This record gives sequence, C-alpha cells and structure tokens, in this order.
Amino acid sequence: MNVTRILPPELFNLLQSEDGFLIAAHLNPDGDALGSAIALAMALEKMGKRTLLVCRDAVPEQYKFLPEYQRFYTFDNVPASGVDIREFSTLVLVDCNEIRRTGMEKSPLANLTFRTTAVIDHHETEKAFGDIRWVAPEIAATGMLIYYILRELAVEITKDIAINLYTALVLDTGNFRFENTTSEVLAVAAALAEAGAPPHIIHRELNESWSEGRFKLFVSLLNTLYIEDCIAITAVTRKMFEETGTTTDDTETFVSFPKIMKKIEVTALLREDGPTETKVSLRARGGINMARIAESFGGGGHKNAAGCTIKADIETAKAEVLRKVKEQMASNHCDTEV
Amino acid sequence: MNVTRILPPELFNLLQSEDGFLIAAHLNPDGDALGSAIALAMALEKMGKRTLLVCRDAVPEQYKFLPEYQRFYTFDNVPASGVDIREFSTLVLVDCNEIRRTGMEKSPLANLTFRTTAVIDHHETEKAFGDIRWVAPEIAATGMLIYYILRELAVEITKDIAINLYTALVLDTGNFRFENTTSEVLAVAAALAEAGAPPHIIHRELNESWSEGRFKLFVSLLNTLYIEDCIAITAVTRKMFEETGTTTDDTETFVSFPKIMKKIEVTALLREDGPTETKVSLRARGGINMARIAESFGGGGHKNAAGCTIKADIETAKAEVLRKVKEQMASNHCDTEV
Repeated sequence: MNVTRILPPELFNLLQSEDGFLIAAHLNPDGDALGSAIALAMALEKMGKRTLLVCRDAVPEQYKFLPEYQRFYTFDNVPASGVDIREFSTLVLVDCNEIRRTGMEKSPLANLTFRTTAVIDHHETEKAFGDIRWVAPEIAATGMLIYYILRELAVEITKDIAINLYTALVLDTGNFRFENTTSEVLAVAAALAEAGAPPHIIHRELNESWSEGRFKLFVSLLNTLYIEDCIAITAVTRKMFEETGTTTDDTETFVSFPKIMKKIEVTALLREDGPTETKVSLRARGGINMARIAESFGGGGHKNAAGCTIKADIETAKAEVLRKVKEQMASNHCDTEV
Repeated sequence: MNVTRILPPELFNLLQSEDGFLIAAHLNPDGDALGSAIALAMALEKMGKRTLLVCRDAVPEQYKFLPEYQRFYTFDNVPASGVDIREFSTLVLVDCNEIRRTGMEKSPLANLTFRTTAVIDHHETEKAFGDIRWVAPEIAATGMLIYYILRELAVEITKDIAINLYTALVLDTGNFRFENTTSEVLAVAAALAEAGAPPHIIHRELNESWSEGRFKLFVSLLNTLYIEDCIAITAVTRKMFEETGTTTDDTETFVSFPKIMKKIEVTALLREDGPTETKVSLRARGGINMARIAESFGGGGHKNAAGCTIKADIETAKAEVLRKVKEQMASNHCDTEV
C-alpha cells in the first residue's frame, strides 16, 4: 500500500536548510491544525532547529491533552515566549493557506517580514500565497502531509508526535467515518498507532469530554426536533444557553446528529442570536446543495455544510429555511428529469 | 507492520482438503459473526468448495447491506436451501466456540453428526469444543482471523469479501474507538479499504439507520437522565415503547451514551419489563467492576458491561442500583488506599 507521497523538493530543502521557523495555525484552531503544527515543531526541534508556534486563539480546552500543546503562543503572548521573534525568518502556515486565515495581519505581528513563506495545507486555495506551497485538497488531513514530511526528513515518529498526528487524522475524518477515509488514511493511522498513539484514549479525550451543561443543552435541543419529509430541524435559544450555563461553542456537531435517522437527508440547526436574528447551520448527505440555500440568505459554505444568518425570529427563520430546502429539492428533481 | 498471523496448520489443512462446510454463526448475530461467516463462505466457494451458512436467527435488517447475506439460512429454513445437509461433513463455528451459542442443539439440525468440527473465534472460551480450534481472545474481531485465513489460503480479497470483513472490524471495535483498536486492526482495515470496502458507506449503513421512532425513544430516554456523582442513570418505560412504536431492540447502544460526559464513570439503563420487573444494563469506563454489581442482583457480565433483572419497579430499582454502585466505588477506594 502506498503510504508515501513526494513532497515538493523545495519544501524539503527549506525545512532542512533554514533554522528559525514561525509556525502559524488558523484561527479557531481544530485538532488537525493544532496536531499538525505541534508535530512539525517537535520534529524540527529534534533536528536542532528553533520553532515558535503561534495562533490567534488559545488552545481550546478539549485539545489540552495534546503533548506539548503549551508550545503555542497567542499573538499577544509572543513576548512572554522570551524569544526575539525576528529570529524566525521562515513563516510556515499549517492547515491554512493565506495570512488572513491566521488573523496575523490584525495582530502585533502584522509588520513582520520573512525571508521565506511556506504553506502546508489540504484546503482548497483561493490565492496562491507563499513562496513554497504544498496544498493537497485530495488528502483528508494536513496531519497526513506532516507525516509524509517527517518520514522524508527521517525524523523518528515518537509517541508524542504520533498522538498529535493521530488526533489530526481523527478530527478531519470524523474518526474514520467520513468519505475522505481512504485506505491511505487508515494505513497512516496504523503506523501512528504502532508508534504509540492510543486510539481509544484519543477518542475519549476528543469525544467523551462533554460537560453536564453541554449534555443538558443537547437534550433541550433534541426536544425541539421538527421533521418534515427528509428534513430535520432543531433549535437552540438564548434561554437554553442560560439555563445550562453553556455557550455557542457547546453546540459543535449538534447540527448533524439527526442524520442518524436513515430517512434524513438535510439537517438545520437554528440558533437564536437575537429577537430578530437567527444563525442557521445546514448539513446534507450529498443530495441537496446546502451552499446554494445559504447563499440565498447571504451566507455561504460547501455542498454538504453551509451557514447563514436570517434577520428574523426562530419560527420565521424555520419557515424560510424549510421553503428554500424544498425549493432546492424540487429543482434537483427537475435537474434529474431533464 | 505485522499484519500476518500464523493460523493452526491443521485448520489450514482442513479448509484446503475438505469440501462441504456447514458454517454456523451465533444466535442474535452481529456484524462480526455475519461478516466473518459470509467472507469465509465466499472464499471457500471460490476454492470450488460447497458451503452452507446457518444461524438460528434471520439476518437483522441493518445488516442486509452485506454482500451475499442471502446465503444465510435459519435452521428451520435449511430445507429451502435445496441441499442435502448430510453432504456438509465439516462444521465450522464462527465468532463463537461452543454449540450452545449457536442454538443448534435445540434445532432440527440437533442430531447431525460431523466428520470434523472446527472453531474460529476471539471470545474467551469455557469449554474446549471442536477438533480444531483457533480461539484468539487477544484479537479484536473474528473478522481479523478470517482475513488471515484468506491470506494464507491465497484467496483474492474481492470488494464483497472486503465489505463483509471491514464490517466485522467496525462492529467489534466501535468504529476504531474501543481499547481493542490496535495498529494491527487499522492495518487490516487499510488493506480491506484498499480492496474496495468503502468506510463511509459502511458507517452510514451501520450507524445512520435509525427510524424516526427510535430517535424519539432516544430523546424520551435522555429526558429521564439522572446524575449523581459520576453515575448517570436513564430509564425507558413500556409507555415510551408504545408511544414511539419501538421495541427493546431499539435501545441498543443507548446505555452508553451518557459516557459522552467527561465526569461520568458508570452508566445504567433501567428498562421497565413489568410493574415489578426492571432490566438493568450497566456500563463503566474501567474503574468500577460492573460484573460484581450485576452478580449481586443475580445477573452477570464483564467488568465494563454487565446486566441483571431486579424484581421491583423502576424507581426502587434505581435506588438499589445507585446504592450498589456507590458501595462498589467505596470499596474500590479502600482497595486503593490499602
């Protein structure tokens, strides 16, 4: 099985020849961004190089099991790192491919200049930022790319590196359940488990870490379930957040849950942001284009995951969303017939 | 990575030399039993041999995506297979290791005699049934053993075989989340995906197939959640089953759900079977022995998963269970201190 990919030679040369690397993850960092960036930093340090990990946002609580997550500094806290940031002449963006995604341009680091900029990412790219780029949208996770880089650099995959990279893979493949779970992903996961990453412990840290408040918010939300045809709509109000002592962060992944029902093709989560402001998250299995629906309300996203804000109360927003989804379904049907 | 295991030579010889194989799965068959048995039958057929797949129970609805699941006959339907069952002189038990687990001894097949009996299983064994045995409790799934057998027999792993074996692995590792998820499991999963098993589709078939009634039952059950210390108790009444048009089968996996909360170490699901009869399912993360609690009520099970029936109404049963779990926790605590 092919578990090797050839990285761009100029990226290999850069990582081999340079010394000071400023490694930046995207804002609102997830397990792929954090795990990938930490693993890369650990590997470069092993090669005797200096690295500094930065992110606009602090490492979220649920990722504080990642070995050496403390390496991360928020832009504001870089002075606390005790290093002279000008010594880091190579900028590496990890799991994103333009400066705007890091938020650095609005930070105290905005005016830094770099000898070389590099990008290691698996997201579709809009602008070709970076002197050296490895952008591979066909790969499930940036963690995969880092794994290949470490192999090519002949750095030992320690247990700590393996945990970071395994977490990256798990995050972006939904624990090996999404369509991007290829044999290649599983083979790299096997190699990382062999190197010491414990799958069940990583799963527990990532997925069994809800607070009691979050659980109660989930139950409240499920009680609002409304089903029409293959569409499932749930809602969360400001009162629910108050009663359970939770925040909007706690609703992560809730929107998709009703897809556990066989007949459900589209799910929507309505979040009350104000008396006449409702945030809408949309998910689909692949049949109906969510981006088009979100765009019709001034939002955006991808085919299977999109979002928008409707200037209306929850009930009105619900009716609007239902109407649009049904319209979209009808036009899909026409498309098929033509 | 080691993805080969040496099977007992006498098992290899048996599968090579014999012709008619009666392959039996355990009663209430799961994905590991079904996938393993079907894959073995398909492989032996490719080698020009005759096989007959039998199980006391019909293939459950959610497994009817398995290629060639129709090969299975219930004991009562064997005559419909059109074969003379006496031609199948080798009995192979798959995913179980004694006749009692198949229910065959109480079936029309009870009086059959076999030239050779073989066992391929990964469950702990109580009796050493079988002329030839490959029982490997250290392996996550029987599907792993079948994979090694097919490799040794040099049978091509077709897409259909791969789907059956991948399903076996997914079932017994909780989609690669349980403690038994080793690098070996992931490496075999990678090989099966490479052979054509589509991970995301298998996940959807297995896990996103709830009925609307089941979903509503789940929500009703979550509304009963009671938390005390690190113990979470949920309950399901006969009224809930009636209102949602569901059966006891629909509660599968519900008992564990509250473990999604970080602080929860023990979960119990109380099922009202009668006015003074409550079925109790118990789950733990590993700290507290559930088998001991179940045994104190005349039930049994394993350390992390056990069950019993209490002759009392739900509320009384709940108080009893809480008391016992706390007792057990206290004695655990003493153990630690000594």
